[in-house]
Amino acid sequence: MDEDTAAVGSMSDSVENSLDPDNWQDFKALGHRMLDDMMSHLETVRERPVWTSIATDFCEHFQDPLPEDPQGALQAYEDFLTEIIPHHPALNIHPRFWGWVIGTGSPLGVLAEMLTAALNANVGGGNQIPVHVEVQVLDWCKEMLGYPKEASGVLVSGCSMANMIGLAVARNTKAGFDVRREGLQAAPQRMMFYTSTEAHSSIGRALSILGLGAGSLREVPTDADFRIDIPALEAMISDDRARGHRPVCVIGNAGTVNTGAFDDLERLATVCAREDTWLHVDGAFGAFAALSPKLRHLVAGMELADSLALDFHKWMHVPYEAGCVLVRSREDHVRTFSMNADYIHHTEPWFSDYGPQLSRSFRALKIWLSLKAHGVGTYRGLVQQNVDLARYLEQHIRANPRLELLAPVVLNIVCFRHLDPRPGPVDPQELERCNRVLLMRMQGGGQVFLSDTLINGVFALRVSITNHRTRRADLDFLIEHMLTVGERVFRSPRVEAEP
Amino acid sequence: MDEDTAAVGSMSDSVENSLDPDNWQDFKALGHRMLDDMMSHLETVRERPVWTSIATDFCEHFQDPLPEDPQGALQAYEDFLTEIIPHHPALNIHPRFWGWVIGTGSPLGVLAEMLTAALNANVGGGNQIPVHVEVQVLDWCKEMLGYPKEASGVLVSGCSMANMIGLAVARNTKAGFDVRREGLQAAPQRMMFYTSTEAHSSIGRALSILGLGAGSLREVPTDADFRIDIPALEAMISDDRARGHRPVCVIGNAGTVNTGAFDDLERLATVCAREDTWLHVDGAFGAFAALSPKLRHLVAGMELADSLALDFHKWMHVPYEAGCVLVRSREDHVRTFSMNADYIHHTEPWFSDYGPQLSRSFRALKIWLSLKAHGVGTYRGLVQQNVDLARYLEQHIRANPRLELLAPVVLNIVCFRHLDPRPGPVDPQELERCNRVLLMRMQGGGQVFLSDTLINGVFALRVSITNHRTRRADLDFLIEHMLTVGERVFRSPRVEAEP
Repeated sequence: MDEDTAAVGSMSDSVENSLDPDNWQDFKALGHRMLDDMMSHLETVRERPVWTSIATDFCEHFQDPLPEDPQGALQAYEDFLTEIIPHHPALNIHPRFWGWVIGTGSPLGVLAEMLTAALNANVGGGNQIPVHVEVQVLDWCKEMLGYPKEASGVLVSGCSMANMIGLAVARNTKAGFDVRREGLQAAPQRMMFYTSTEAHSSIGRALSILGLGAGSLREVPTDADFRIDIPALEAMISDDRARGHRPVCVIGNAGTVNTGAFDDLERLATVCAREDTWLHVDGAFGAFAALSPKLRHLVAGMELADSLALDFHKWMHVPYEAGCVLVRSREDHVRTFSMNADYIHHTEPWFSDYGPQLSRSFRALKIWLSLKAHGVGTYRGLVQQNVDLARYLEQHIRANPRLELLAPVVLNIVCFRHLDPRPGPVDPQELERCNRVLLMRMQGGGQVFLSDTLINGVFALRVSITNHRTRRADLDFLIEHMLTVGERVFRSPRVEAEP
Repeated sequence: MDEDTAAVGSMSDSVENSLDPDNWQDFKALGHRMLDDMMSHLETVRERPVWTSIATDFCEHFQDPLPEDPQGALQAYEDFLTEIIPHHPALNIHPRFWGWVIGTGSPLGVLAEMLTAALNANVGGGNQIPVHVEVQVLDWCKEMLGYPKEASGVLVSGCSMANMIGLAVARNTKAGFDVRREGLQAAPQRMMFYTSTEAHSSIGRALSILGLGAGSLREVPTDADFRIDIPALEAMISDDRARGHRPVCVIGNAGTVNTGAFDDLERLATVCAREDTWLHVDGAFGAFAALSPKLRHLVAGMELADSLALDFHKWMHVPYEAGCVLVRSREDHVRTFSMNADYIHHTEPWFSDYGPQLSRSFRALKIWLSLKAHGVGTYRGLVQQNVDLARYLEQHIRANPRLELLAPVVLNIVCFRHLDPRPGPVDPQELERCNRVLLMRMQGGGQVFLSDTLINGVFALRVSITNHRTRRADLDFLIEHMLTVGERVFRSPRVEAEP
C-alpha cells in the first residue's frame, strides 16, 4: 500500500467535515438574532453618534494571532458585538452624515446581500439567470440615464474601476495603432487625455495603471462655476497637436466631488466629435441628476458620451460595492478586454469580455430588488429631495451674516465657511484655523459629520447630501449647532488647533 | 420668490421620504422569512439539481422595462422566488459541483454579508475599526501562507485584480525608469514578462490592461507534470536580453487551473534573484496548500515571491467577492498606487494607496468571522479532505479499465476520460466526440457537474474539488453514473453531438 492509498484509507475512517452547521436550527436562531440586531441597528441609527474616535489601545484587539481552533459562529458573533459594533460609529448610515460622497445603504439592501450570498453565484457570463438579471439592470440603468439602449455595460466594484475601464477602451480605440498587440511603448506619439482641475483622483490613478504616465493628463482650468473651460481645452488640444502629441480622450465631469459642478457635456461632445477624441463622463453620483425633471438639464449631452461611469452605491444607496460602466460601442468595449475572438458568437455576454474580472458576484440582485421594491419614482424623489435640502441649507447660509457661501450650489453639495465675527481686520490664516477647529469640534461632538475642501485655495466646510435619511430638521440642527460651536471657537482668540 | 425658493417652499409642505420601511415589524418579518428560506435552500441543496438549462422564452421575463412605481419589498421578494430561485440551479453550492475552480460559500458567509451590508462601511482607510479588521485579516493571511509579516496587502474583488495589482507593481518597480511620470511610451526597451503555457488567462488580460502588449508576454513550455520548464525560461530570458529587451517579471503558478500543477517556486525565486526580475505568484486556490502539512511542500518558495495573488472565495469558501494581493515591499506597492506623497506619514493604511479602488466594502468581515468561527484548523482539514477526495477518485479511475487518467493528480484536480470499450482500432475523433456527449449527458442529467479541458491537446473530463460539501459517496455516485451513461454513449455507434 503506497502513501496515497494509506491517505485514502485513513480518510475512509475519518468523519467527513464541511462548513455547514451541525445543528441548523441553532444556526438559524443565531441568524434571526443577527437580523433583529441589524434591523434595530438601522432603526435606531439616529440615536447613536455619527462619529466617535477609537482609543489607540483598543486596536490591540486586532493583533490577536490567527485562530487555530473553532470558537463557533455564536462566539464569533459575540466578538463582532463587543469588538466591532460599539466602536464603529454610524458614519454614512446616519441621517446627519454629509462627508465626501458616500451612499447610505438601505434595509432592503441588507436583505438583498443575504440572498446574494446564499446563491453565491459566480456571474462570469453565459445563459444563466444572474446574467439575465444583470443585463436587465444594465438596461434599466441606460433607461434611467437616457443612455443609448444598444450600449454595452458591466457592473464593477465602483467608479474608480468604471473610470479605468472607460479610459482603457478610449486608449485602445483612439490610439491609432494596435495597443493590445504592440503595447504602449510602440506609440508613435504621446497620447493625451484632458480633464478639468476639478476631476476626481481616480482619473489620474486609472491613467497611471494604464501605463500612460502623468504627462499624458492635461488638467484644464475651470470657469467661475467650476466647469471645464472649453476654450482653454480647445487651445490645449491644438497646442498638443502642434507638438506632435495625439489627443485621445476628454473626461467630462457630471457632478464634481468638490462642488457638484457639471461640465457642459453637450459642448464637450461637439469638441470631441470635431477632434475625433473619445468622450468619457465621470458621473459617479451626478449622473443620477437625470432622474429628476428639474435637474435633467444638468446632464444634457451625457447621452453622447462614448463611455459613462457611475455608482449605484452612492445616490442609489445599494450597499457597497456596485459601480457601473456603460460603453456606447460594444465592439470597442469587447475588443479592449476579450481574450478570445469568440465573443462575437456569444448570445449572452461573458462579462470578462467587458472588464478585468472573471469571477464576479451577483451584484445586480441588490439593484434589481431595490428598483422593483422602491420603483425608480422613489429615487427620482429622493435625489430631488437631497438637492432641495442642499438649497434649503444654501438659503440658511445666505441669510446668515456669520456664514459665507463659497461655491454655487448646483446639486447636493454646499461649500461654505463660518466668518470671523470679531471686530477688526480679518486674518485669512486665523479664519481658516478657526474653521478647521470648528470642523474638528463638530466632528468630535458626534452629532454631525461634514468634510472639508479647498475652493479657489480657500478652506471650506463641505456638506454633501447623498443621504436618504437626512431631513430638514437635521440641517436646522446643523446650523444651530455650528453657530453655537462657532460662537465658542471665535470667542477664544488663541484656540490651539487640536491634533 | 425665485424658482429655488419656490422649490424649498414646496418641499416644506411635502412629506419627507426615505428608503426605510414604514413598518419595521413587517419588514423584519419579511427578513426572517428570507433567512429561513435561504437557510433551507442551503440545507436541502443536495436534493436539487446541480444544473438545469433555462428555457429560452423564460428570459423574456428579464426584458420588462424599468419599474416606475414601487411594488414593495414583499412583492420584489416574491418575484425573486418565482423568477430567479426556481430557474437558477444550485451550481457551485451543490456537493456534486466540480466545474472550473469555484468556492462553495458557507452558511456563516451568508449571515456575514448581512452584517456587512448593515454597517455599509466604506473601508477607504484611516483609523476606523473595519480598517483594523482588514489589517488583521491580511496578517492572518500572511500567517496562513507563511508569507513575510512585513508585507503589505489589500483585499480586492478577486485574483484577476490581485494579479493586475502585482504585475503593476512589478512593471513600475523593475522598469528602470519612472513609469508613473513618463508612461510606457518612454520605455527604452521592451519589458518582458514570463509565465508557463498553463497560466490563467487573467495574466494576459492584466498585462493588456497595463498597456504592455501581447508581445511582452512569453509563454514558457512546461514539463510532463505541467510545471514551468526552468531551463527553457532561462534560455528565453537570455535570448531577450541579447535582443535588447528587458526581463521584468516571472509569474509562477501555485496550482494551475487545468491540472493543479505547481511550478518549482524555489527555483523560480533563484532565477529571479539572479536576473533581477520580479517574482509574482498566482496562487488563486493553490496557495492554500500551505495550510496542510502534507501539501505544504508544493508551495515551498512561495514565501520568496515579490507579490502573491489569491482568493478567499475559492478554497476558503467565503461568498463572492474576496481576493487578496500581498506585496513583499510596502514601499514598492504604495509607490505604484498612491496619488500623494503623504502616505509615508499614515499610521493606518489608506487602501487606495494599494490598488485601484477608493470606495471599498468591508470584505474583511466575512473572512474574520469565518476564521474565528471555524478556526484555521477546520480549513486545513477541508483542503486536505478535498485533496484526499481527488486521490480517491484518481484511484477509482486507475483501477477501472474503462477510464484513463490524463494528468498527474497533485492537488484537487483530476483530468481523465472514458475509453472506448468497443472492439477494433480507436478513432481519436470518435473518442473525443463520445466524451463530449458523455459530459453533456451528465451535465444535462443535473446530478453531477464537471467541466472539460485539453491535456496535451487531448479532450479531458475535469473534476476540480474546491467544495466543502463533497463526500466520498458523491464521487462513488459520479463513477457509477459515468459508467452507466458511458455504456449508453459508447454502445450507440452514431450518437450525434447534441447542441
